[in-house]
Amino acid sequence: MAKTVPVAKYLFQRLRELNCHSVHGVPGDFFLRALDHIRPAGLNWIGNANELCAGYAADGYARAGHSIAARQFGSGPKVGALFTTYGVGELSAINAVAGSYAESIPVVHLVGTPSQKTWQASSAARPVHHTLGDGRMDVYTEMAERITCAQTKFHKYRRVEDAVQAYDETLQECVSRSKPVYVSIPVDMLEAPVPLELLAKPLQLTAKGETGSVEDDLARNIAERIRTARAPLLIVDGLSYPYDLLAEVNALADMIPTACFGSAMGAVDSGAKHWLGTLSGPTEYFDSADVVLIAGPMLSDTNTAAWTAIPPTEDRVLFNLASVEMAGIVHQVPGKTVLQRLLRELSSNLPTAVPLPARQPIKNLSVHTEITQDVFWSTMSSLLKPDDTVLLANGTPLIGGRDTEFPLRTQVVASSIWCSIGQMLPAAQGISLAKRDLGLPGRTILFEGDGSFQVTCQALSDIIRCKLDVTIFIVNNAGYTYERWLNGMQAEYNDVPAWRYTEVAKVFGAPSDYPVLAVTVRTMTELVNLLAQESIHDGKGLKIVDVVMDAEDVPEKAKAGLRRAGEALRTLM
Amino acid sequence: MAKTVPVAKYLFQRLRELNCHSVHGVPGDFFLRALDHIRPAGLNWIGNANELCAGYAADGYARAGHSIAARQFGSGPKVGALFTTYGVGELSAINAVAGSYAESIPVVHLVGTPSQKTWQASSAARPVHHTLGDGRMDVYTEMAERITCAQTKFHKYRRVEDAVQAYDETLQECVSRSKPVYVSIPVDMLEAPVPLELLAKPLQLTAKGETGSVEDDLARNIAERIRTARAPLLIVDGLSYPYDLLAEVNALADMIPTACFGSAMGAVDSGAKHWLGTLSGPTEYFDSADVVLIAGPMLSDTNTAAWTAIPPTEDRVLFNLASVEMAGIVHQVPGKTVLQRLLRELSSNLPTAVPLPARQPIKNLSVHTEITQDVFWSTMSSLLKPDDTVLLANGTPLIGGRDTEFPLRTQVVASSIWCSIGQMLPAAQGISLAKRDLGLPGRTILFEGDGSFQVTCQALSDIIRCKLDVTIFIVNNAGYTYERWLNGMQAEYNDVPAWRYTEVAKVFGAPSDYPVLAVTVRTMTELVNLLAQESIHDGKGLKIVDVVMDAEDVPEKAKAGLRRAGEALRTLM
Repeated sequence: MAKTVPVAKYLFQRLRELNCHSVHGVPGDFFLRALDHIRPAGLNWIGNANELCAGYAADGYARAGHSIAARQFGSGPKVGALFTTYGVGELSAINAVAGSYAESIPVVHLVGTPSQKTWQASSAARPVHHTLGDGRMDVYTEMAERITCAQTKFHKYRRVEDAVQAYDETLQECVSRSKPVYVSIPVDMLEAPVPLELLAKPLQLTAKGETGSVEDDLARNIAERIRTARAPLLIVDGLSYPYDLLAEVNALADMIPTACFGSAMGAVDSGAKHWLGTLSGPTEYFDSADVVLIAGPMLSDTNTAAWTAIPPTEDRVLFNLASVEMAGIVHQVPGKTVLQRLLRELSSNLPTAVPLPARQPIKNLSVHTEITQDVFWSTMSSLLKPDDTVLLANGTPLIGGRDTEFPLRTQVVASSIWCSIGQMLPAAQGISLAKRDLGLPGRTILFEGDGSFQVTCQALSDIIRCKLDVTIFIVNNAGYTYERWLNGMQAEYNDVPAWRYTEVAKVFGAPSDYPVLAVTVRTMTELVNLLAQESIHDGKGLKIVDVVMDAEDVPEKAKAGLRRAGEALRTLM
Repeated sequence: MAKTVPVAKYLFQRLRELNCHSVHGVPGDFFLRALDHIRPAGLNWIGNANELCAGYAADGYARAGHSIAARQFGSGPKVGALFTTYGVGELSAINAVAGSYAESIPVVHLVGTPSQKTWQASSAARPVHHTLGDGRMDVYTEMAERITCAQTKFHKYRRVEDAVQAYDETLQECVSRSKPVYVSIPVDMLEAPVPLELLAKPLQLTAKGETGSVEDDLARNIAERIRTARAPLLIVDGLSYPYDLLAEVNALADMIPTACFGSAMGAVDSGAKHWLGTLSGPTEYFDSADVVLIAGPMLSDTNTAAWTAIPPTEDRVLFNLASVEMAGIVHQVPGKTVLQRLLRELSSNLPTAVPLPARQPIKNLSVHTEITQDVFWSTMSSLLKPDDTVLLANGTPLIGGRDTEFPLRTQVVASSIWCSIGQMLPAAQGISLAKRDLGLPGRTILFEGDGSFQVTCQALSDIIRCKLDVTIFIVNNAGYTYERWLNGMQAEYNDVPAWRYTEVAKVFGAPSDYPVLAVTVRTMTELVNLLAQESIHDGKGLKIVDVVMDAEDVPEKAKAGLRRAGEALRTLM
């Protein structure tokens, strides 16, 4: 008799094959039994406090594989994984999964559902819990189809062999398209036996054979444009991380002037020969550029100063995951391959040197009384070390981080299209966990807002429960300061309640064998003294620094942009 | 020149007309300006810590209108209201809105979106933040359409007059169908002027004219069946609350034997002449019943002991919102009207008295050392007073509450189809707020699980911020005990971390002028002593009682059912 493996174990072993060692989620009765198979399959179950946190954490877990460090020290996870229950569970996580879609992060969302019999009946007269009570059992899948790139619904298959084959294909889509996928499994199929030989066949993750000549021609054309350009420019955008373009853009940054948008901070080493820094809008050089390569284009309004920093179509070349757009014409070839061939072209024939603007020196540490946004973010440069992963929450961290100098191989996680408040604390949990699971180097450092922290505060409990290493700076400025600048500077609707951030870890059950450092700093002197202590730098255990700042303060550089954005809101009518 | 009112103010004034005085939500840049119109329209903005909490709170707010007390002391709110931002905000709340749909709660979900121009462009090349980045801007609406009964998308209208008229119709659907609705407004339409005369025309909330004879005939037939029945039975189910059937079922409970399902606890006064109690499964009388009326049928598995307590089609009459089903034939007439006429029929000709089973006496207070589930829930009967609203979270509170004796006019909120963990803490916020807004009597008392509390703990911050009156008993039993009984009694995946529940309020910023009582009880003596204190009974401010119970303990009565359910999960394969 052929050897078999239960479906649940098959699901998990495939994830393990993708270097995913942990599954995030909240247990539910429709898949409790599946959890008995996690450990035997070589994975860990991370019981998050809620599903939204689990979704963000799974997204963070997948992002850990994008760091430069990951490529130098081994392989990162190819996917993040999330397991929730039907209806109530999956919908609570759907914002995080949609965010993974928007920002091209490969996450596998597993959903435990009612039995096949229940699906067949789909009865309004006998509604099962977690349904809408009207027999429409497909509603959640219909929602998921809109925010995932592939789906497998096990209850649609009569033969379990066909279902797991569809699952394999869905996983392959997840990785190759770098987007989330959706997999639902009825409770009565979890233990169904799958022939072990199916599992023995590895997943097919390599791309289809390439013709080569298209890429070569394209690379030559682009190289020619760069050589003849008066002012060539490479802009690195956020999708360079998930599209795995970091090696290529760093090599290019030694050849032609290179800048990045906010979501790609850290992607290029600031020591690169032609490094211009992070664009907060058009610069003089940007305006003069006559050919602009954009790697991993996200091109969102928040990322490009409301599209003012996007060059005209005829001047630009976009390097996407599976296509390259040049002067408005789309070629269906992988952006990474074309970038690699372009590098070969350029290496043999370097472009003319172009004059570069002088770089801003890093500000020195200051001990002025209060901690201003301007001084804070540049001061933070002294905290960072190579291989750190730095998460910038929405709001002032996202803008302030542009003033921070990132050392070699720093991965910066800065959402620039999804921009969902509360994403980064659970994402930090997922990243720190992936670093531990896979032995990836570097600390996990989160710059969080007080408003953001309150959205997903229970993620701190998840961090504590897993005894993870996370350093958190909370910008405690009594509200949604970014929003204040848009409308309602003193409005109550922009306030958030004053929590005692340094006491949260204790209340969330931090055990005595898990090191917690929790401290409030109100002045630059206190901040500088803190940074002088060794304990803040070791990245071990949980560190929470509650940084008190003024409610209306934002980085000086950002004020004009925020004023414009606020004005736009007020003049739209 | 005709007088006008900005769209935003129009939106809010219509909600005020529906007795909704507060809007829950989290601010976002696409609708910040709308918030400037809330106070002038006579409403409050409740800035929740996150959108899921806001959604549950809006649901709770609407439920406050269902209490018996509401009918005796004035009008409750006809809807709850929720305002979130496009994409990230609305998706974070979607689980709560879907729950309102499943449990027939009228909630108005307003969503602030990008401008009309952005909608027209729907550009993948220039993606705006909070979109998926691929130009598919309608995705979130498509999701909302599946879990709301009506929608108005302002960007679809060229004339703002047409848009607000569609809005009015959507609100009318919300109330008349008792389901959530979805309304999206582009940021540039918030200030558009609407002729004031449109607002002067009141919303049409009364049902269409009835023929009357169909209802009369039906009522006579039902009455005849009851009169000739050997054992008639009325079962009150959860939708009797939103369908406004409480007056009718209480009158009927004085005429024929009456029981309820778990989700309708509190709907019938336990002093009613023919009151049988809450059904946990078929009883001897249920089995003998030859005609069974079901008011507000929800009929979910969790509510009906896996449908074992649903009578055969030919023996039953279902009273729905807009239809009555008798012996399998559906009549399109309002259930409430038919119930009223049935009462008239029966009053003039009472049915034969039927023998009733003896009722269980309430257990006396006990001072045994540990607090067992069995003793706890009956002990809680002594805490409750008329007009209280009691929320039972999923898990042991939902089952344990069946052993609690509810005084006159107690409203019990017990989800029995949606069953989403974490719903009840934010729902308690919404209910308590509605009570204050509308001067409704009675305390808001929540029985919460530790696992549930951690899902939406930031709702406690919302309660504190609004200085609401809420009493919370936390069943602190170290995990998902309900799930333990289904699978994995000692499994780690059913554990939740040990938080210090009595310290959370302080950490979440409870101010000194807001009374907080927070205490842990570990023994019956401590519990009895606490109940002997006046301070626990006044319902003022926040009270958190951390009740430590055994991880594996459930009410004795529930064990057999849980064992069966667990066995079903294990034998499905």
